Amino acid sequence: VKRSAYAKLNYVFHPRSIAVVGASRRENGPGFVSALLRGGFNGPIYPVNPKADEIEGLKCYPTLLEVPGPADYVISSVSASRVMGLLEDANKKGAKVIHLFTAGFSETGDRKRAALEQRVLERARELGIRLIGPNCMGLFYPKRGLAFNPNLSIESGTVAFISQSGANVGEFARTSVSRGLGFSKMISYGNGIDLGESDFLEYCAEDPECDVIAAYIEGVRDGRRFFRALRKAATAKPIAVLKGGRTAAGNRAAASHTAALAGSSAIFDVACRQAGAVRVDTMEQLIDMCVAFHFVRSVPGPRLCIVGGGGGRSVLAADEATMAGLEVPDLPEDVQQQLLEFTPIAGTSVRNPVDTDMSWIGLGIKGIQDTLRIISRAPNIDVLLYHRGMGNWPGLDDKVDFQSLARQAASQMANVAGEIEKPLVLVGRGAIDGKSVDVVLAFQDEAAKRGIATFPSIERAALSLARLHWWQQNRRETMAQAQGSGNS
Amino acid sequence: VKRSAYAKLNYVFHPRSIAVVGASRRENGPGFVSALLRGGFNGPIYPVNPKADEIEGLKCYPTLLEVPGPADYVISSVSASRVMGLLEDANKKGAKVIHLFTAGFSETGDRKRAALEQRVLERARELGIRLIGPNCMGLFYPKRGLAFNPNLSIESGTVAFISQSGANVGEFARTSVSRGLGFSKMISYGNGIDLGESDFLEYCAEDPECDVIAAYIEGVRDGRRFFRALRKAATAKPIAVLKGGRTAAGNRAAASHTAALAGSSAIFDVACRQAGAVRVDTMEQLIDMCVAFHFVRSVPGPRLCIVGGGGGRSVLAADEATMAGLEVPDLPEDVQQQLLEFTPIAGTSVRNPVDTDMSWIGLGIKGIQDTLRIISRAPNIDVLLYHRGMGNWPGLDDKVDFQSLARQAASQMANVAGEIEKPLVLVGRGAIDGKSVDVVLAFQDEAAKRGIATFPSIERAALSLARLHWWQQNRRETMAQAQGSGNS
Repeated sequence: VKRSAYAKLNYVFHPRSIAVVGASRRENGPGFVSALLRGGFNGPIYPVNPKADEIEGLKCYPTLLEVPGPADYVISSVSASRVMGLLEDANKKGAKVIHLFTAGFSETGDRKRAALEQRVLERARELGIRLIGPNCMGLFYPKRGLAFNPNLSIESGTVAFISQSGANVGEFARTSVSRGLGFSKMISYGNGIDLGESDFLEYCAEDPECDVIAAYIEGVRDGRRFFRALRKAATAKPIAVLKGGRTAAGNRAAASHTAALAGSSAIFDVACRQAGAVRVDTMEQLIDMCVAFHFVRSVPGPRLCIVGGGGGRSVLAADEATMAGLEVPDLPEDVQQQLLEFTPIAGTSVRNPVDTDMSWIGLGIKGIQDTLRIISRAPNIDVLLYHRGMGNWPGLDDKVDFQSLARQAASQMANVAGEIEKPLVLVGRGAIDGKSVDVVLAFQDEAAKRGIATFPSIERAALSLARLHWWQQNRRETMAQAQGSGNS
Repeated sequence: VKRSAYAKLNYVFHPRSIAVVGASRRENGPGFVSALLRGGFNGPIYPVNPKADEIEGLKCYPTLLEVPGPADYVISSVSASRVMGLLEDANKKGAKVIHLFTAGFSETGDRKRAALEQRVLERARELGIRLIGPNCMGLFYPKRGLAFNPNLSIESGTVAFISQSGANVGEFARTSVSRGLGFSKMISYGNGIDLGESDFLEYCAEDPECDVIAAYIEGVRDGRRFFRALRKAATAKPIAVLKGGRTAAGNRAAASHTAALAGSSAIFDVACRQAGAVRVDTMEQLIDMCVAFHFVRSVPGPRLCIVGGGGGRSVLAADEATMAGLEVPDLPEDVQQQLLEFTPIAGTSVRNPVDTDMSWIGLGIKGIQDTLRIISRAPNIDVLLYHRGMGNWPGLDDKVDFQSLARQAASQMANVAGEIEKPLVLVGRGAIDGKSVDVVLAFQDEAAKRGIATFPSIERAALSLARLHWWQQNRRETMAQAQGSGNS
């Protein structure tokens, strides 16, 4: 019986014990030992360092061989020159997986270091040990307490992030938490000499803990296998991919970073399209796309109605949405008439964008809610966007608790979203300082708790909705083709 | 003798007295009277409202005619139907300028209201009164205390912003202050039935208080005159233009907003290029471009060196800079060797992007400074960019004053910028919450005080530098052509 990719790889994420070889004596800040402790890893953690007796309150061992029990999973922080010896020790301790945080291999461009990397891979294969890395942060699996950075949130969620860069994992985790995204697993795999993008894509495709996949990939080891893995993942789940190394300079940087052969950006693009994945251009867009996948899931069509204040902002919003690939049609005459019954005429518009100066605070919220309700019944509208500037609050003084107001507004919007039959997304825009940023974060957090997608700008919301719509259509076509060719 | 545009229009910005007709009784928040008071307008301010005795501590008059002295400048907050009467009263009080905050004219799409707007214009011309608006916020001239929003900074600077949208003026002012931009004049002109984009462009071209011009334009009344005015402004000063209404939906929104006939986006593009202006796509880019114009001024060429940490971030940075139109060449072998003398090999790169994990805090700053010094001597590099993530500070606890650290780092970078002979721009990126945003703002503020350009992301910095380089080249060509054809 052929075992599934999930069954074959699942043990990698479920070690019973972990040794951190080359653990830092003073883990002030990030460190694997404190990350595992804070993550609540449920098993022995063995710091190994001949110069320390204790690390983060745990007994420290001079060598890996002196660790009392077996070590399923070994994290290597020693220098590259010591990794071959570590492999032998790890084998003696029964290790099944070694995560090489250790860098200084092929990515340096040095021939001897590249040859050493090759020997490490060959020896690991002989020993039946799987490698993560080298030159990476490893696994982040909050549900089981696997972690590599004690400062990242350990709340579980359903997004998987497969990343060739550890820094990008940190950035993704830190900036997406306020948008309501939690992680099933985050995987930083660096040079990926053994386990790489294709292994993890196949795994996540079947992983029942994951419902959205994000990937940051610099280079692909085996193009044909990658395409199969990507198609498998994209067929199973929504997936967004950011490619690093799309230009000659980016290619060279990728080679210096993870020894990746970045390959042709155009071919990568075609692969994503044919597999049914969405390709994005920035880390911000990767997060936005996951928000759209997770919260919006699908849109009935590309026709957007934009509701909010600020004349010039409305004009630009219409431009941005159109340029992103959406349509912003005039509302039907009867819908405009219904809106005109309570929308003041001066300084407003009810065409689309609906530019209204009704406040989201206090009594005005009823007007906004009614506006959204009426628009949701327009037959030529598929999805609604409400935006609000959060950089200033005319008429309110500093004693007001703006975070509570923002939460209340998000909640009131969520109430409307629950009533209407079309998706509603929210944009809290225009934060200008720490105070207003925290108000936006409160707004986003409350909306996410109620299951509503938020975006920091109209432009980013529109791009994500346009891509969501494109993805639905493209995926339908690619699946029909795959079935037609008996190739599903 | 033909008077200059500046001499002809300067009185508009220098009223001796101001009447606010239809002043709000409770100016809780924005309001013209409190804005003028806070701005320190140096002359009588007369609130007019038959229902109030006093507004913001000033005596309030029942009608404009009852105001004691002459009223050079009248701000109209009355309804559209009362503007014709107001014109007569204003004329009796010697008004030279009326700013019509009043909306509800041609932008409503209502034929009667459009006809009323036309009558207002005709009568104002008969009376020799210039109109600003209708449907706009009017003039913001901090040096003379002209203001329309008491919450905007009234610190003077050298950037002029000509905007068809009042909301965009507010957004521009609020979000650019931390980047070190101050305003000579901001002009919100709305429907612009009398004074419009061309008048203000001609004025700003000659205004000695302004050295950079930004413009947000939805529609142009007279294409030939606009092109002449734009060329005059672009010949005199760097100018960045954001066009609202670039798509069919944006066009319709512009019509609803300011009754603008937005016209062809392609023709507008050509006009900007031929005039020597930079066209941008978003409000953020408009601010970024002013930062580049004001602080960087010019770059010797398009070859960028990127310095900072975060492997995947460096790869994406190389892509983003290349896609923006810059070059990111490998550093010369000898420069790489010099950097390798003190840059650790594992997890870094000295090619370009220079990916270094040396900290900007404490001792590490010396390494960063030396890195920038050495790179600045590379013959194939024209401009340097240093970036730093500011969303987390490994190894430092909450008791550290991060804002002070950020200011110190900006100052130390400014010291290097003063030594080297190529432009250096700074990017404080990756802020994730109110606290880290305030750290970035401190970083930006200190850098600006030292005359250094900052950007919130590498992508935005690269785009602005690429446009700055394009603008220099394009302007050289357009000026040569203009001279060649005797058409300067």
